[in-house]
Amino acid sequence: MVTEKFTELNKALKWNEAGLIPAIVQDVNTNQVLMMAWMNAESLRNTLTTGETWFWSRSRQTLWHKGATSGNTQKVTAVYYDCDGDTLLVHVDPAGPACHTGEVSCFFNKIES
Amino acid sequence: MVTEKFTELNKALKWNEAGLIPAIVQDVNTNQVLMMAWMNAESLRNTLTTGETWFWSRSRQTLWHKGATSGNTQKVTAVYYDCDGDTLLVHVDPAGPACHTGEVSCFFNKIES
Repeated sequence: MVTEKFTELNKALKWNEAGLIPAIVQDVNTNQVLMMAWMNAESLRNTLTTGETWFWSRSRQTLWHKGATSGNTQKVTAVYYDCDGDTLLVHVDPAGPACHTGEVSCFFNKIES
Repeated sequence: MVTEKFTELNKALKWNEAGLIPAIVQDVNTNQVLMMAWMNAESLRNTLTTGETWFWSRSRQTLWHKGATSGNTQKVTAVYYDCDGDTLLVHVDPAGPACHTGEVSCFFNKIES
């Protein structure tokens, strides 16, 4: 059942030349955009089956279970994909700050114009 | 002044191998995530100087002033970049739907798990 669903989904999504898709993570409670990271097929599958976010670390070239070391896991409440199937939006209930710096969101740098 | 600011900013950002950076667009009124598109240096510069969103269309390989044809421009209220400088978050006050389908947000496809 999960496999069928995943096969269907896999067809709807456009993975880039490295087999990745960008995933925007938004806090479902506050609506704050927390971070953007990349998923490959396996990390999306893990995300859907475990109910917590998994990504692909491009720098470490490895699967990454968000919060595995920090404890700041993200419980997934919904996953959406966009009109052209090349970006994901993941709604989460986070156990703690998304950013490795301790900030709630990774987007804490404002461009002054 | 704008040039200096832009040079400084340009250094803080990590553009990908194609000279692009992903830009998440969020409605500042509703907090809804509307779309994700790509910017090159010129589109970011245009965005900051005109106060409306400009992107780089990868399929058409051209600068794209959002809403130029549809009228659904996006007034920029703030631009943020993330902790590692490789993603932008743009807060906007949109004149109309973000999606070419007429949907308010491009993320209208929900993955049923």
